[in-house]
Amino acid sequence: MAGSDLKGLFIVLEGLDGCGKSTQAELLSDFFARRGIRYLHVREPGGTSLGDKLRQILLDPQTVLTRWGEVLLLAAARAQLVQDLVRPALARGEIVISDRSLFSSLAYQGYGLGQDVELVKRVNLEAVEGLLPDLTFFLEVEAGVGLARQATRRGLDRIEQRDEGFFQRVVEGYRQLARDYDFVRLDGTLPVEVVHEQILTILQGKLREEQEDE
Amino acid sequence: MAGSDLKGLFIVLEGLDGCGKSTQAELLSDFFARRGIRYLHVREPGGTSLGDKLRQILLDPQTVLTRWGEVLLLAAARAQLVQDLVRPALARGEIVISDRSLFSSLAYQGYGLGQDVELVKRVNLEAVEGLLPDLTFFLEVEAGVGLARQATRRGLDRIEQRDEGFFQRVVEGYRQLARDYDFVRLDGTLPVEVVHEQILTILQGKLREEQEDE
Repeated sequence: MAGSDLKGLFIVLEGLDGCGKSTQAELLSDFFARRGIRYLHVREPGGTSLGDKLRQILLDPQTVLTRWGEVLLLAAARAQLVQDLVRPALARGEIVISDRSLFSSLAYQGYGLGQDVELVKRVNLEAVEGLLPDLTFFLEVEAGVGLARQATRRGLDRIEQRDEGFFQRVVEGYRQLARDYDFVRLDGTLPVEVVHEQILTILQGKLREEQEDE
Repeated sequence: MAGSDLKGLFIVLEGLDGCGKSTQAELLSDFFARRGIRYLHVREPGGTSLGDKLRQILLDPQTVLTRWGEVLLLAAARAQLVQDLVRPALARGEIVISDRSLFSSLAYQGYGLGQDVELVKRVNLEAVEGLLPDLTFFLEVEAGVGLARQATRRGLDRIEQRDEGFFQRVVEGYRQLARDYDFVRLDGTLPVEVVHEQILTILQGKLREEQEDE
């Protein structure tokens, strides 16, 4: 599983804002809760006192921040979350559901903002001490769809305010990452219940695989 | 000078807390002010809205922060300071006096906290887009001296609270950096006025050199 000493399963949901990640994370949490399976649901950036402070800075439209600074604050929040919450939960054998991960930094700040993807990766691998997800679901929507879904909900934050060219590069980045890191690609435009069933089917296959390995 | 398009002079003061950096930075500022020489005096971390927020987080004894997270927050603050204040001042031909620089990250977080020195350097060079000081004054004091001077002043911040072994590694790190990056080493235990005169003498030599190069 996630690491030699980590018995749990580390599940990550990735995709554009508005692709349905948070909804799927909640449905998955409910699924585990109903079955009495111990899980931890986290969302990046945030989840720790440091992460919440940095989240506020990162999303505030008033914040003035260099592109590289954005990479660094996200990685610092991630380091704290993984050290304080994710690793301990995995060590206890729990399932961790994470809404975003280091792959978001590669897609958004690496490919989207044009920062050195390899260096973004090194900075983040150092932050998570090499911990990669066991299963990454990529909910695919076109750049326009995510933005439109978001806009109907509330004011846009600092990162959501970027132009469509940015989100187009993020989507292309995600597609590259999907190949490099073996993401499970799902059509984010399908009805919520359909995507949820697809996630459960793949997850059950993965859990069977793990049991057979033991 | 600092870079092909930068006409100013970038002066950095480095050393342990309590070594006299801030006092020397102020004396130097006064020296320039009295002569009508345009200068900018900055202090790390801080100097920008982002930097001040991160400084608060970094120094607050209540903050829980991974070692790598500390590297990242300092580099993010530095990126903002260099982009918003240091580079523009150098481009206008001003003298910049900086109390700390990326060398502090190499000494404190690299050597002191045992983080990967080469990676700390890459992260920071990316943050400052390659900008290195023209002249770095290293005010040497033994680990015990700096701590004792600090303790008499006020409560210690999160970083100052570290043990003497940490500060010993920082001092040794600084000595290594002094060799690698050609620092001007000054005895920080000498009287303030003596150190100030030494700094002025070296600075005037440097300025003469620059004029001859033009």
